[in-house]
Amino acid sequence: MALEFDLIDTFFKPLCFGLSELEVGIGDDGAVISAPANHQLVVVTDTLVAGVHFPVEATAADIAWKAVAVNLSDLAAMGAKPGFYSLALTLPENNQEWLKDFAAGLKAVSERFKMPLVGGDTTKGPLTITVTAQGWVPKGQAILRSGAQLKDLICVTETIGDGALGLKVALNQLAIDPGFELDKKMMLSALNRPIPQLDIAPGLVGLVNSAIDISDGLLADLGHVLSRSTEKAEGVVLGAEIALPHLPLSESVKQYVHATGDWALPLSGGDDYELCMTVSAENLPVLERYFSTTGVRLSVIGKITNSGKVVCVDEQGHAVDRLNMHKSGYSHF
Amino acid sequence: MALEFDLIDTFFKPLCFGLSELEVGIGDDGAVISAPANHQLVVVTDTLVAGVHFPVEATAADIAWKAVAVNLSDLAAMGAKPGFYSLALTLPENNQEWLKDFAAGLKAVSERFKMPLVGGDTTKGPLTITVTAQGWVPKGQAILRSGAQLKDLICVTETIGDGALGLKVALNQLAIDPGFELDKKMMLSALNRPIPQLDIAPGLVGLVNSAIDISDGLLADLGHVLSRSTEKAEGVVLGAEIALPHLPLSESVKQYVHATGDWALPLSGGDDYELCMTVSAENLPVLERYFSTTGVRLSVIGKITNSGKVVCVDEQGHAVDRLNMHKSGYSHF
Repeated sequence: MALEFDLIDTFFKPLCFGLSELEVGIGDDGAVISAPANHQLVVVTDTLVAGVHFPVEATAADIAWKAVAVNLSDLAAMGAKPGFYSLALTLPENNQEWLKDFAAGLKAVSERFKMPLVGGDTTKGPLTITVTAQGWVPKGQAILRSGAQLKDLICVTETIGDGALGLKVALNQLAIDPGFELDKKMMLSALNRPIPQLDIAPGLVGLVNSAIDISDGLLADLGHVLSRSTEKAEGVVLGAEIALPHLPLSESVKQYVHATGDWALPLSGGDDYELCMTVSAENLPVLERYFSTTGVRLSVIGKITNSGKVVCVDEQGHAVDRLNMHKSGYSHF
Repeated sequence: MALEFDLIDTFFKPLCFGLSELEVGIGDDGAVISAPANHQLVVVTDTLVAGVHFPVEATAADIAWKAVAVNLSDLAAMGAKPGFYSLALTLPENNQEWLKDFAAGLKAVSERFKMPLVGGDTTKGPLTITVTAQGWVPKGQAILRSGAQLKDLICVTETIGDGALGLKVALNQLAIDPGFELDKKMMLSALNRPIPQLDIAPGLVGLVNSAIDISDGLLADLGHVLSRSTEKAEGVVLGAEIALPHLPLSESVKQYVHATGDWALPLSGGDDYELCMTVSAENLPVLERYFSTTGVRLSVIGKITNSGKVVCVDEQGHAVDRLNMHKSGYSHF
């Protein structure tokens, strides 16, 4: 688009902070970034499309935040230290108000997570935002989906289901008085401004056996871990047992599930951007001590089995649901 | 989209070749890539939008080739060695035939330039392709736009104007018998399957003072070099003198310009993906010797002046056109 250079100068160049003298940010054919010694690069990419990944009426600042945050969540799941990101922004029109708001959201998330914007491309077309974010892990120590071991304990950070409940709020799918206590503001914030667990991620390296970020929903994402880890396990088809009473739920989601019986929301709703990790029983106390220093909530919700299935159990340990393993993941409710 | 995992397994995983045992490609939250010692990372991003950057009827294989090639051209302009790339593909529908063709184009360009695909995202929406490509340069030695020096000679690789003439062919803007010799096939190939100068790029490090790839058109891109280099030059406003008779033109473009007088096509048409470099008089013989070993054509087309203007001159050295410098670049014809 004709105003590409003005756009970049006004809105994006200020987000290219913290580079050293030997590094190059926005303004050349590409960015030039120094690699820390003894580290590997972690690269993640996620695209948000208007009308698919966010309602068309979402604010530009929220879209910007989320477009970056979902990528940082992927970096966190690898145990990466923050690096930098690039942005490919396709816009239907040169709307300065929208861009100002978008840039404010970018600035907020960039500064919060110390991730400079180092380059990108702006093009004209239907609203689409692709972020490629990069971080660094000590050589050979990236946390992978494939590392889960039989008898590992399954843990998640913070609470799950809030983003999915936030989506119901955003889409007006709940009655004005739903008959239970509902913190709409908090649920919408979980949906629109998710907080990726990037701050604590580097401390997980060497401590957990596997990790994934919960974007598709706990069961689906745990399914990815089981599939990939089974490929590496010799002759064992891994499964999991999840204790429903141990799922960390916010007061709103707890009340929603109590009122509706809809466990699918926290288990499969997705849009959580929390981490699901597996850890050996031996390392669990160390992991718990680490979390106690971070202020981030850690919950043990189950364990890795050799059943080839994901089973959810109630207070008494009785199976309340069975999900059969498929080649490409798990089928949900 | 529902078939995301099948898509990735079938079409994209085979393009993730050449990684070492310590590296991780497609299939986790992110890719993990080792950094060669004493090198910096070069990151570039470019988006192609259907109907904007290619006609809606363009073949999927050509779109794939070009989406990657334009990024490799940016890497080449920094003097980078090939690294790897990620792909964010937004598709209106799960059309297997189209995807098969797209993957064939990706495979061709990936293998030709030894660039594995290490990750990405597939989403549903209007056809948009964002590639983020990465390469490596020896520490502190990336070739920048800002390095042009007064009296540098200006060089370009191969020929210019072919892509722009190819676009006229594709859009049927030329008479069936245009009255001159026109290699339509070659021009369309220049448009749809540009060959980025990545093979020769690492050999330019330490030899040329500045480089840019010609995507917006020779004059516009040279303008970027002059703007950025002027910022670094003390008190001198750089300009350039271009000798029109020395512009490297294919037979088709030569005949087109002869028939129409339309110099704007090779000077400002863009879509060339050749390199425009500046080199000191001292280094020129070394550069010419290097090119003679590569099979890539090198042409000296002018020199850097302190006039603050780009002047095109004819055989006798008479100015045939003047372009005044603007804040954000150069105005064209």
